[in-house]
Amino acid sequence: MKKIGVSILGLGVVGGGAYKILTQHREFYQRTQDVDIVVESVLEKNRARALALGVPEERIASNIAEVVFDPDVNIVVEVIGGVEDAREYVLAALNAGKTVVTSNKELVCKFSHELERAAKRHNAGLYFEASCVGGVPIIRTLLDGVQANRISSMMGIINGTTNYILTKMTKEGTTYEEALADAQRLGFAEADPTADVEGYDAAYKLSILSSLAFHTKVPLAKVFREGIAGVDKEDIGHGNSLGYELKLLAVGKQSEAGIEVRVHPAFVRKEHPLANVDGSFNAVFLTGDSVGEVMLYGRGAGELPTGSAVVSDIIYAATHNENKYSTFKNTATADKDVKFVTDFSSAYYLRLNVSDRPGVLAKIASQFGKYGVSIDKLVQAQGAGDKATVILITHETHELSLKNAVAKLDALEIAEVKTVLRVAS
Amino acid sequence: MKKIGVSILGLGVVGGGAYKILTQHREFYQRTQDVDIVVESVLEKNRARALALGVPEERIASNIAEVVFDPDVNIVVEVIGGVEDAREYVLAALNAGKTVVTSNKELVCKFSHELERAAKRHNAGLYFEASCVGGVPIIRTLLDGVQANRISSMMGIINGTTNYILTKMTKEGTTYEEALADAQRLGFAEADPTADVEGYDAAYKLSILSSLAFHTKVPLAKVFREGIAGVDKEDIGHGNSLGYELKLLAVGKQSEAGIEVRVHPAFVRKEHPLANVDGSFNAVFLTGDSVGEVMLYGRGAGELPTGSAVVSDIIYAATHNENKYSTFKNTATADKDVKFVTDFSSAYYLRLNVSDRPGVLAKIASQFGKYGVSIDKLVQAQGAGDKATVILITHETHELSLKNAVAKLDALEIAEVKTVLRVAS
Repeated sequence: MKKIGVSILGLGVVGGGAYKILTQHREFYQRTQDVDIVVESVLEKNRARALALGVPEERIASNIAEVVFDPDVNIVVEVIGGVEDAREYVLAALNAGKTVVTSNKELVCKFSHELERAAKRHNAGLYFEASCVGGVPIIRTLLDGVQANRISSMMGIINGTTNYILTKMTKEGTTYEEALADAQRLGFAEADPTADVEGYDAAYKLSILSSLAFHTKVPLAKVFREGIAGVDKEDIGHGNSLGYELKLLAVGKQSEAGIEVRVHPAFVRKEHPLANVDGSFNAVFLTGDSVGEVMLYGRGAGELPTGSAVVSDIIYAATHNENKYSTFKNTATADKDVKFVTDFSSAYYLRLNVSDRPGVLAKIASQFGKYGVSIDKLVQAQGAGDKATVILITHETHELSLKNAVAKLDALEIAEVKTVLRVAS
Repeated sequence: MKKIGVSILGLGVVGGGAYKILTQHREFYQRTQDVDIVVESVLEKNRARALALGVPEERIASNIAEVVFDPDVNIVVEVIGGVEDAREYVLAALNAGKTVVTSNKELVCKFSHELERAAKRHNAGLYFEASCVGGVPIIRTLLDGVQANRISSMMGIINGTTNYILTKMTKEGTTYEEALADAQRLGFAEADPTADVEGYDAAYKLSILSSLAFHTKVPLAKVFREGIAGVDKEDIGHGNSLGYELKLLAVGKQSEAGIEVRVHPAFVRKEHPLANVDGSFNAVFLTGDSVGEVMLYGRGAGELPTGSAVVSDIIYAATHNENKYSTFKNTATADKDVKFVTDFSSAYYLRLNVSDRPGVLAKIASQFGKYGVSIDKLVQAQGAGDKATVILITHETHELSLKNAVAKLDALEIAEVKTVLRVAS
């Protein structure tokens, strides 16, 4: 039986999960995968943590050189996070001809070109299923499951923290601040939640996934990004009563016009499979020209789910020799010929404060009409004094047209536009 | 660039779809997969059909020998269906060292051992993603996506015809007969619908999927099977009002007690992701020890979705040389040591006809209690004359206990048990 030596760099949440899975399943993999996967070493400064996980003392490496020059190590697992040390270590491993498995979305997103060059030059593998959507095998699916298709669209709920917060606001009517505090208490959000709630985490993942789906590098800088920090529970309530759920959506589209990539909160119709993806669950909904609509659903984070993705990559690398760097083909750098769409179209949800006078709704509709924005639904909610709240859902329209119409409404003092949110179509 | 020659046996729905996808995407695959896939020949008795698809006359083979002895053919696609000719052709191709891609669930289910032996002996590949759940890459996911996990449970809606019928009965309140006639009119059901409505189609797929998930051959004979032909719209209505949707479920479980595989109608709680899988859509919901819950959702049938699965296998085979028969490892024959569970447990839905007299509900509850069946919900529906309809949902219980309790109720003439259906847990 083939023996494969693994070294794990970093025994944090994901590294600890991968270590547990590998050691507890060694015989299972011998039997089912015909390969003996052995953890040869770990690189972890916190020796107490390593020992607590059951790592034998002599398997704790002192430095990266010990790992990358160890002839018994075939696969190096980078799960330390961050981009400085991680980049140095991954390059050192690739340059030594070791296959690398990483969960580091920021590293893969920002340095894929450099990593890919090193991997190809040294005939090493480079795998990163765990960088996107935890245990859900979305990268494997893009590469080996729906690769017969031109993918026209990808919509994902790919950040568990924001989905937890939005689900809590929806189901319990809490404010954003209350839901965030709750997520922090339960460990679903960091003390500094910026990376999650402002959509950076989702943008890294969308850059990676759309690069693979569209067969060309989609740089982070091309991803439009808007977070959920400003979301008002009042809008979630109005949206719900009109049949929508608010989600932080990652959207990737490819058409004749170019590639469009964006992360922002959006209302999703309750009948759409993504609308029911709640709490810390994640999902990606794809449309391919042959397969049609496909959705993958599962846990987007956590010790064992993300560890499962790391170990699946290890097994894949250990059992597929000839195709080591398959995950990177055609995703080197942004192609000069690729166009990116910036003035994208969407349907919109608007909450307006209007004077409760006859004719005001007609005036609003007429202003929107002038800018080519057509209205799908218009509902007058409760008023207070001589003011009324009006909720509008538009048909799909160019964002610029909508912005112009909104500016005009404000300028003419016909209505005060309190909220503008996108509606997924 | 590597050139791969393909021959397609049979240009029916799936074969026609695969032919269209391959010919329309040839340049796309050259660019994105670095492989030139050429349809070298087709074997189709109906020459007019082949010509109508645009197959050049000289590429229509006259017999199987022409295909399997053609040195330009690397991959043979078997999409003729049935098991007699298909088996002969597939064995001929494998024996000639050609890799085979097939969509034939009955063939794979019944003859996997023989096909695997031939593939191994001649170092040929054998792929069958298209045999299960159309374009949804469930086999790829089991083999290369969640392979780090011990799978404890698999629940699937894996037959589009029955899901179409049950969805129509649920949404429109039609009878089984009306819904079936509608499905036949739309081409979702065959003139003889037995294979679908009696669960044979789902049983073939469950045998294949559970063999892969549980790493041991699960023979068709071990799959408990019950169809939907007896389903009464009245029960669907009662279930709906209690918060359940009726689905034809394929269930595979593995535990210390053994492997349990069954296909039957079952009520699914509306909050479960499978409950929202409607119409001709399919889904498989997996539970792995590390990844937790994962669901794959998409179109389970159709020319292009199933064609997409065929072509994904072709690309996989064309770009992964060293691991040609990966799909079959460890699924040769039933292992003598493997136990199969037959007296399985479930929660149950029962519809009873009772005399509308004081104390009758207490008597029913007491009889169930005697057999260790505990009641989760008990609702008295409308009555007619001195009769009343009672709906019961039990907690999970052994099927044998339930059957004994039901027999006793009937014998004592306390209640007439009109319907017993399982409830998924």
